[in-house]
Amino acid sequence: MLDRNTDILIVGLGLMGGSYARALTAAGYCVDAIDRDPEAIRYALAEGIIRAGATDADPALIGRADLVVFALYPHVFLSWLEAHQGLLKPGALLTDVTGVKGAVVKAVQAGLRSDVEFIAAHPMAGREVSGVQNSTPDIFRGANYIVVPTEKNTQSAIETCRTLGEVLGFARVSELTPEEHDEIIGFVSQLTHCIAVALMTCNDDQHLEEYTGDSFRDLTRIARINDEMWSELFLLNRDALLSQMDAFEAQLGRLRETIASGKRDEMRAMMRRSAERRAKFDKITK
Amino acid sequence: MLDRNTDILIVGLGLMGGSYARALTAAGYCVDAIDRDPEAIRYALAEGIIRAGATDADPALIGRADLVVFALYPHVFLSWLEAHQGLLKPGALLTDVTGVKGAVVKAVQAGLRSDVEFIAAHPMAGREVSGVQNSTPDIFRGANYIVVPTEKNTQSAIETCRTLGEVLGFARVSELTPEEHDEIIGFVSQLTHCIAVALMTCNDDQHLEEYTGDSFRDLTRIARINDEMWSELFLLNRDALLSQMDAFEAQLGRLRETIASGKRDEMRAMMRRSAERRAKFDKITK
Repeated sequence: MLDRNTDILIVGLGLMGGSYARALTAAGYCVDAIDRDPEAIRYALAEGIIRAGATDADPALIGRADLVVFALYPHVFLSWLEAHQGLLKPGALLTDVTGVKGAVVKAVQAGLRSDVEFIAAHPMAGREVSGVQNSTPDIFRGANYIVVPTEKNTQSAIETCRTLGEVLGFARVSELTPEEHDEIIGFVSQLTHCIAVALMTCNDDQHLEEYTGDSFRDLTRIARINDEMWSELFLLNRDALLSQMDAFEAQLGRLRETIASGKRDEMRAMMRRSAERRAKFDKITK
Repeated sequence: MLDRNTDILIVGLGLMGGSYARALTAAGYCVDAIDRDPEAIRYALAEGIIRAGATDADPALIGRADLVVFALYPHVFLSWLEAHQGLLKPGALLTDVTGVKGAVVKAVQAGLRSDVEFIAAHPMAGREVSGVQNSTPDIFRGANYIVVPTEKNTQSAIETCRTLGEVLGFARVSELTPEEHDEIIGFVSQLTHCIAVALMTCNDDQHLEEYTGDSFRDLTRIARINDEMWSELFLLNRDALLSQMDAFEAQLGRLRETIASGKRDEMRAMMRRSAERRAKFDKITK
């Protein structure tokens, strides 16, 4: 259970780890952090958003944590656990913020000590800037938090992880299997980033900004992409992402055909379906 | 020249016509309006954003206007002129807000009385709602206004149209030929709407809203599309739009190939180019 006596350790104090630290400290929890960047730790201590920090795998911080949140790139997360899981407190609960699950969750659970438990989660929030200096729990407001349990998880860990999402301030907490998660994230998150990158790089006009409206700005906000992180996430979810790209391209092709052949009624039917789906979407998400 | 003695008539008092009326009345101009919907005229009179209004082609209102702004669907604009241009005041200047130019400007200029002048313009602004009741000049703040002259236009008309864009409150006024306009608008505006519609309709999952993040919301804001207006605009700009769709699809295909074949360096190079272009874009537009 998550309560005020729970010692929380955040490994990876960037935008997401920092936002967790701010939200949890503000909610009255004791939060420690590990980050290889001394400036991130110094900043977080000065801001009062962590109790203690270290730039290496400090046995004291790791050994006292009841809940450890990993906010790392997937491959760094996996190698950190391999190297340092021996330092974890017996009974500790581990969770993460990783954007892909199939390639991560089972690898973690398979290699983990039997006296600790890992429950995967995906906070659907972010900003186009990075680092603890830009962190803010505001990104969780109105946002979705997905818990991604497997058959190896206990009901108690699932409950604690759901509570964590609520304490952080997410508007909605839900559950998906790793396969469901990766398929949906391939669509709502990865495909959208692919579209933004392709749109931002398919036209070399150097004066676009003089003629653009809000629609182009909206569709390319996420084109300011972190290439190191997203290339790793794309490749770890390759099959689901490719299948979502194919479904999108097929639908864009159908729309193209209505334009090329002047089938206005079909075009308008597709547009009406689009407007109806988006309207429902607005209502539910706001 | 545009000055406080200029009598302005707005034909079509919807979201855009209404926003023009509000901005011009607030700037001290005398603004009349014609709209077939009596409720739009009644509302605009009650709000004090027009001096007088009519629901048909009122000869008194048309005959006193020095500047007439057409805020109509393209085919309605063309047939209105055909039916009523005899009522225009000699020397009147006409302009519009139409989202395509090649198919409109030359048709208008070819059929127009020789003692009036039409100068095309495209205010790059809008909202996902319609009607004069939702109009506001706030949509012009920070936005782009494009004047689209042809060889038939006088320097004086071009200057007046540029001044109109400034009076309305646009952040930047520029000039394009009809062909340049349609190519660029095919990209920044029409292609983006096609992408949003295809994205919003390519996945039937009924629970997407529980798992989505801001990226999907951003990319589908404009999926609440007005099918009557946009299907007309798409078909009037068919060739330019199809060629922009093809360029986008080819680039998305290139990105797909880097994912499918695991070419991470190429993928990251495309992402870095995307991030660099978008960053420059932000700087210039803000």
